[in-house]
Amino acid sequence: TIVAAAEAYFSASRRLSGLRALVTSGPTHEAIDPVRYIANRSSGRQGHAIAAELARQGAEVTLVSGPVTLPDPPGVNTLHVNSAREMLQACEGALPVDIAICAAAVSDWRASEEAGQKIKKDGKEPPALKLCENPDILARLSASGAKRPRLVIGFAAETSDIAEQAAAKRQRKGCDWILANDVSAESGTFGGPDNRIILIDDQGQEDWPRSSKDAVAQRLAARIAQAFDRPHRQDETPADD
Amino acid sequence: TIVAAAEAYFSASRRLSGLRALVTSGPTHEAIDPVRYIANRSSGRQGHAIAAELARQGAEVTLVSGPVTLPDPPGVNTLHVNSAREMLQACEGALPVDIAICAAAVSDWRASEEAGQKIKKDGKEPPALKLCENPDILARLSASGAKRPRLVIGFAAETSDIAEQAAAKRQRKGCDWILANDVSAESGTFGGPDNRIILIDDQGQEDWPRSSKDAVAQRLAARIAQAFDRPHRQDETPADD
Repeated sequence: TIVAAAEAYFSASRRLSGLRALVTSGPTHEAIDPVRYIANRSSGRQGHAIAAELARQGAEVTLVSGPVTLPDPPGVNTLHVNSAREMLQACEGALPVDIAICAAAVSDWRASEEAGQKIKKDGKEPPALKLCENPDILARLSASGAKRPRLVIGFAAETSDIAEQAAAKRQRKGCDWILANDVSAESGTFGGPDNRIILIDDQGQEDWPRSSKDAVAQRLAARIAQAFDRPHRQDETPADD
Repeated sequence: TIVAAAEAYFSASRRLSGLRALVTSGPTHEAIDPVRYIANRSSGRQGHAIAAELARQGAEVTLVSGPVTLPDPPGVNTLHVNSAREMLQACEGALPVDIAICAAAVSDWRASEEAGQKIKKDGKEPPALKLCENPDILARLSASGAKRPRLVIGFAAETSDIAEQAAAKRQRKGCDWILANDVSAESGTFGGPDNRIILIDDQGQEDWPRSSKDAVAQRLAARIAQAFDRPHRQDETPADD
């Protein structure tokens, strides 16, 4: 029957049941004044696809999403935030988790002072916008002490020297894996359906072929299951053991 | 019949036929680098509603829209742009028109230099973002010489002293009417369904009651028809003439 087939399909693929996962997704919006903000071109598609896939594989997923136009993924506890500071707070509130995946394109900077009123043109030269650094969510989760997730995964959105930049980022942040992708305008990654990933871990570099963001999510979920020693099918008994 | 009723409805309301209108709508996005940009909270709902209503009333409408998630209004020639400079170019290309309505929330400023590569955090203090002034589309259309539209209408998005700021803006820009609205966070105007308008013209100030953006568009279209001496119904013959 269709029901039995669906049950078999879901139970066969629920390789992550019992694990808790935190996923961030989308851009952040950093207010300059009540009207203006700094944003970036992340659509949230990759992060949302990962959250949906982990949930489908049985994980208990909290998704912390910046402003996107995507629907909340089914079966995922989705929290909506705007700024990097709000995103950090929501992430810390979601700990402890087994897996943290930082797919959001968090703004590195915000305006040092958010104006309470709309900043007016007054006929003079525009003021330089003073910026200050936002909290680094990936680094914070990677260094969260006793609450540190067992597996912390970051993304690196690069426009040049992708693998080198990503390997350096992995070291700097203290995370376990980095999934690097090319977000140059030519690549069509931001906002587009496809992604080409280079995975960096302590073993080195893995090049994944260009594929849909859903396929990237499936491949990542499989690799996570492998890292947690989850068998390919829960109902499979290894022949020799 | 339904067809006849629909025809009567449309012909009765086509008070602007034969007129050409240009409407701008939505925010602009001003690139900082290939990934980041400065944006604002305009949804484009008011500008799109105006374009749709003017077209419904028989005007030949060109809509120049910044990045929005709204569908193109039916019966409207819609041009899509990102930045203020692209918007100005599209507007100038649409001239001559009889009516220009600048409802877009054009970014006053852009980054002085757009970086070709993603700007990296390098562990130092973030750099101040140097800004320069964008072209002023409303002022340019108001001062376009022989091609000046007969009626130029601007919007003023204010968070305080709304009528005073708007009257000053009307003088400064050289436009004919200003529709001022309150975009403070409390007002819910940006992104929301409603709007409260104060219209400023050479006669003074008119306060419109809070209403839907569609109703604002209808009221504005009626006031434009009045300004162009269009009768309330095209099939009506004035009793004394």
